Amino acid sequence: MSDPAAKSEQRIRARSGKVRGETVTLAHGSGGKAMRDLIDDVFVGSFANPALAPLEDQARFPLSELARAGETLAFTTDSYVVDPLFFPGGDIGALAVNGTVNDLAVSGARPLYLSAAVILEEGYPVSDLRRVAASMQAAAAAAGVAIVTGDTKVVHRGAADKLFINTSGVGVVPAGVHIAAERAQPGDKVLVNGFVGDHGVAILAARDDLALDVPIESDSQPLHGLIAALLQACPDVHCLRDATRGGIATVCNEFAEAADVCVNLDEPAIPVREAVRGVSEILGLDPLYFANEGKLVAVVPAAKADAALAAMRAHPAGADAAVIGEISAKPAATVIMHTAFGGERIVDMLVGEQLPRIC
Amino acid sequence: MSDPAAKSEQRIRARSGKVRGETVTLAHGSGGKAMRDLIDDVFVGSFANPALAPLEDQARFPLSELARAGETLAFTTDSYVVDPLFFPGGDIGALAVNGTVNDLAVSGARPLYLSAAVILEEGYPVSDLRRVAASMQAAAAAAGVAIVTGDTKVVHRGAADKLFINTSGVGVVPAGVHIAAERAQPGDKVLVNGFVGDHGVAILAARDDLALDVPIESDSQPLHGLIAALLQACPDVHCLRDATRGGIATVCNEFAEAADVCVNLDEPAIPVREAVRGVSEILGLDPLYFANEGKLVAVVPAAKADAALAAMRAHPAGADAAVIGEISAKPAATVIMHTAFGGERIVDMLVGEQLPRIC
Repeated sequence: MSDPAAKSEQRIRARSGKVRGETVTLAHGSGGKAMRDLIDDVFVGSFANPALAPLEDQARFPLSELARAGETLAFTTDSYVVDPLFFPGGDIGALAVNGTVNDLAVSGARPLYLSAAVILEEGYPVSDLRRVAASMQAAAAAAGVAIVTGDTKVVHRGAADKLFINTSGVGVVPAGVHIAAERAQPGDKVLVNGFVGDHGVAILAARDDLALDVPIESDSQPLHGLIAALLQACPDVHCLRDATRGGIATVCNEFAEAADVCVNLDEPAIPVREAVRGVSEILGLDPLYFANEGKLVAVVPAAKADAALAAMRAHPAGADAAVIGEISAKPAATVIMHTAFGGERIVDMLVGEQLPRIC
Repeated sequence: MSDPAAKSEQRIRARSGKVRGETVTLAHGSGGKAMRDLIDDVFVGSFANPALAPLEDQARFPLSELARAGETLAFTTDSYVVDPLFFPGGDIGALAVNGTVNDLAVSGARPLYLSAAVILEEGYPVSDLRRVAASMQAAAAAAGVAIVTGDTKVVHRGAADKLFINTSGVGVVPAGVHIAAERAQPGDKVLVNGFVGDHGVAILAARDDLALDVPIESDSQPLHGLIAALLQACPDVHCLRDATRGGIATVCNEFAEAADVCVNLDEPAIPVREAVRGVSEILGLDPLYFANEGKLVAVVPAAKADAALAAMRAHPAGADAAVIGEISAKPAATVIMHTAFGGERIVDMLVGEQLPRIC
């Protein structure tokens, strides 16, 4: 039997440039020749890696390369329906890779392998699909992960809005790391790795229906490197979540509820850009609820807060990190904002929808 | 610290029955309170299992429970956009679970864990979503897998057609099993586990726009049990794929191309129900290209063909199994149909689209 990897590569080379026409057609979702051509040309060409190349229905990797004693496997999924697909600071492809990398990384996992499943609307420009695939690959390379398996579906015009992407991911959590929402304890400090709300405002500004001219880019970025640095400085991180839909207000509420504690936030300490604050005031929205795509909230033991903050600030993804609050026992399952003027208010979970299709 | 699983269960119980209103709203995709209520009520209630219960952004499981020497991890993804969502013999939920179970199983893997990510159209009936979730859970229980992580997005009315589901999955391939398309060798026998084309015809008949009254049900079913029985009878299965979109014609072409061999099919030996044959004749379509959701094509060494066939027939999912062809060296990368009347024709990959949104 000849070398399968070499054979696959040969087969892919033979098929590159095979996509005819400029838009996606229903045939591209047929399971037949057109679909194979689209996959080989647009995706396999971009994502090229040995686990993907055999184009089996599933990717396989030796567990011995993954498993060391006490390690656990982390597995996550997210669909991305962001509108518009391209926006300042990123696009749906980078978002789909970074978002799933981050959902693995906040468990302390080394992100390893991603899947990519696209749902395409008939008529979607193939050139745009190429841009998205290239962006996914660039994000995957930057995060050190491989996109190893995938799926392509095409629906009639009007049955989906252009392009949706699902990325699922697997990674390995090192022995001894146990990060979980219910571990927040009275006395712990709450940290964020930089300015909040950028992604939400960038998407709002990019939408045609809002005449906002704001120089804000999405913060879409992978956080696994920052988290590795944080874990080195503070191995016993109690809680960690990336603050996407629902913003840091939602993450803090999740921690408060899971651990049955109070998260006290110090309003003046929360990093919010002037432009983001301005947009929230104009629209009457709270930046704490704006989505982020490269921000996390960490809860660490008080004794390790300075070391954790220093480690985050020393990493490019955490240059503007800050201690933004602390945990108390009471009132349980509550988030309280302590304002600049000595006031207090309850920060509840988001009720209703602020910004649909933000990610 | 109290028991996290007990705490999660308590939290879930507190939230069950929390969904208000009868249709999905944009708030159900907000990341906030309404989304949590929907997830807890509809999904977590249905899928209840210890890996899902903590509701972290990722599920985690000890690698030591998975990994034995020489084993490999299998990882796969598929999105489901089938129209209609409910059809004779199944629905999108069962399809999404069985399809991903099968994509793992055809590698020889024990399917273990699934993710479930839904994209919902605003206005979708919550009662239908409950039906789908219950169906997913029933399929998962039947297949012995747990749905351990998920995601929910909601888009505006008209931006998606009702409901799309992505399921990804991980499983473990036992040591020594190496099933791959490029392993088809001259002399090998080709088997199928039963009647082909049922799913495609069931979906066609279920569509309002075709006035077909055909008593055919989808064959949606998990194949891991059948495959385990097959591997016991014939440990050296060379190739195995479930014949979904594009049908068994497409799978045979994938084998022929990957292994650079000829797949010779014996037309009278291929099990096709009379009703399916009738529909194909009326519509001028070939049942070999009809989608299946519970059929696989296996390539096994000739010496083991009888044992493989007997093992398949002894399993409920393979009662109508048949040897349908054999592999020859030439003409390479080709599928040839040998007809009942001694004729021959090339069976090419599907060109164009036969039935959009079949799965």
